[in-house]
Amino acid sequence: MSDKSSDNKDAVSYSKDDPYLLTPGPLTTSSSVKKAMLHDYGSRDERFIELNGRICARLLEIAHAGETHVCVPLQGSGTFAVEAMLATMIPVEGKLLNLVNGAYGHRISEICDYLGREYLVHESAENVAIDLASLEKTLVDDKHITHVSIVYCETTSGILNPLEEIAEIVYKHGRALLVDAMSAFGALPVDARKLHFSALAASSNKCLQGVPGMGFCLINSHTLEQCKGNAKSLSLDLYEQALAFRKNGQWRFTPPVHCMLALSQALLELQEEGGVEGRLERYQENCNVLKEGMRALGFRTYLADELQAPIIVTFITPSDNRFSFELFYRLIAEKGFLIYPGKITKADTFRIGCIGDLDADLMRAAIQAIEASLSELGISNS
Amino acid sequence: MSDKSSDNKDAVSYSKDDPYLLTPGPLTTSSSVKKAMLHDYGSRDERFIELNGRICARLLEIAHAGETHVCVPLQGSGTFAVEAMLATMIPVEGKLLNLVNGAYGHRISEICDYLGREYLVHESAENVAIDLASLEKTLVDDKHITHVSIVYCETTSGILNPLEEIAEIVYKHGRALLVDAMSAFGALPVDARKLHFSALAASSNKCLQGVPGMGFCLINSHTLEQCKGNAKSLSLDLYEQALAFRKNGQWRFTPPVHCMLALSQALLELQEEGGVEGRLERYQENCNVLKEGMRALGFRTYLADELQAPIIVTFITPSDNRFSFELFYRLIAEKGFLIYPGKITKADTFRIGCIGDLDADLMRAAIQAIEASLSELGISNS
Repeated sequence: MSDKSSDNKDAVSYSKDDPYLLTPGPLTTSSSVKKAMLHDYGSRDERFIELNGRICARLLEIAHAGETHVCVPLQGSGTFAVEAMLATMIPVEGKLLNLVNGAYGHRISEICDYLGREYLVHESAENVAIDLASLEKTLVDDKHITHVSIVYCETTSGILNPLEEIAEIVYKHGRALLVDAMSAFGALPVDARKLHFSALAASSNKCLQGVPGMGFCLINSHTLEQCKGNAKSLSLDLYEQALAFRKNGQWRFTPPVHCMLALSQALLELQEEGGVEGRLERYQENCNVLKEGMRALGFRTYLADELQAPIIVTFITPSDNRFSFELFYRLIAEKGFLIYPGKITKADTFRIGCIGDLDADLMRAAIQAIEASLSELGISNS
Repeated sequence: MSDKSSDNKDAVSYSKDDPYLLTPGPLTTSSSVKKAMLHDYGSRDERFIELNGRICARLLEIAHAGETHVCVPLQGSGTFAVEAMLATMIPVEGKLLNLVNGAYGHRISEICDYLGREYLVHESAENVAIDLASLEKTLVDDKHITHVSIVYCETTSGILNPLEEIAEIVYKHGRALLVDAMSAFGALPVDARKLHFSALAASSNKCLQGVPGMGFCLINSHTLEQCKGNAKSLSLDLYEQALAFRKNGQWRFTPPVHCMLALSQALLELQEEGGVEGRLERYQENCNVLKEGMRALGFRTYLADELQAPIIVTFITPSDNRFSFELFYRLIAEKGFLIYPGKITKADTFRIGCIGDLDADLMRAAIQAIEASLSELGISNS
């Protein structure tokens, strides 16, 4: 932790330039993660090939998936990885059951529209977890469904979906599960020894605390064998991407080398923190400080506590007509913290993230900044 | 130039860790470009929105395209940008004439296979520029052709294709030109005031000397209006990507923030060097030193001098049976320089790049390293 606090001191000295990002990503990374990018590696040189292999092995290890899955990194944002997963895993004649309770679930439907893949939407309200009984009934009723997709932590609200239970039902009914674990992987548990999934997509810059620029999919090795020719995009074809790595350990097309250097350092720091368990503990504490502090200031959370993932918290916009989100955002930003607008369709909300290189002290400082900003808006605690 | 030499000194002090990359990219960037990544920006914050807008404006300016085109950046490698350009610009009922004299030309065909777009290949040998008379005849003969694609500098060999002449013929015959300017943009001239092109794709980490992680397309504004619905990929849909930038200046999906910070600094350094003209001059000198030095060591270039772009040079592998490329590569690498394998289909070759943060002195040092490595292989000048 001594390294950590010196990192934070560094960051504080920059704070006028670099506010803390209380956002779902890009997020605040440690200065050592950023400094790892001060090198140029040749992408076809053995030093990079080794680094790449080590990163992929570590990503599999985090999910206890080394025996069953392969890790296929992909250039681009998390959405690129999700699209590549859907395009590669679902054959043209397949049918997806898409479990939706937020914008990222809807994005999966939008991708299927682009790809021309058949899908059925099973939608719950944005503040309600996926209904398991109804999921099971749908799988029993519709024999055409081949795949089921779920967003592990739906960043729209910050809701935690019951991944284990969903996986169990999907497995029991012989369907393939595709998981968007974008803002979960690295902090929320994924154990492939117990959890059956065909593929899972995540990214370098959420709970892994790397920088944005690449995503990856963990794909069941046997299932991947059957995916040749599914994707109708050269860039997003994870079957061919995996084949290239197997052939010579190299990316087909120029990799985001500096992003990989940062991720390598970020994975080391995850390990030092005690892996997924250690990270979850810190995020949970951040989340508790945030919720309690905000409630003390009179704010209400959008989700019930038992549905809240310790990733990002949605707050109801106060009805006080002196409150303007734009002004509130700006006042808090002046104090060195960036918060995030809301994305809930049926409620006026805003969001504050608790992931990244932040600890409980920083969350308390954020609460102070928010309290001061409220005062400046002329709004007192209620 | 004083900043530059201090950068080089920095780099020299790292040299055991960080060899100079004599490759077509990722390439050696200045230490100031890398240091620009030591910050975390919120991707929806106005500071990033401004930076993004400035970068796009500058990229248009480099091509004198501010009046006619829009700049649409895209996450991923250069190939992602090329695929996005083809997917967005060519309607399903279109037909592409693909001018090919190397692997990147063939990659365009491969993308069209994936996308299900009709195309005709007009192929020349890898050491021969595109034949203009035959291009014109093809356009006259085949009225179904709607688009023509060309790789400006074909990195396979390092050949310079006659972009201006090709553009003139394509324009004269009322077809739309799509340019893969990946390893050309920033060093080879592109002037949209005189050169008619519908779209041009390039990347952050070739002659612009940024880091890899994003590409971009310059797209004719009027043409783009007609491209809604062409792309069958959410991630690669440049029409929707452009629409989002127009709406609020923001990326649809998480941008590679640090890569953009590096590019911003890299564009500043391009300007300081005297823009495209200044950069071309340095690359030309690098290329001359390289060719002369290698010829003095007995190597032969694959291309005739008049076809050689000052980007990457292909050399014929010596027939001496003491020469092994793997060993040669390793010996040079030990001396702090990475060279590149060949990609020519009909000749045994290797490649040495002359782009990136390198100058003539460094190229001379590379030649010395190559000479010493040859001696270690027991091969003397011939």
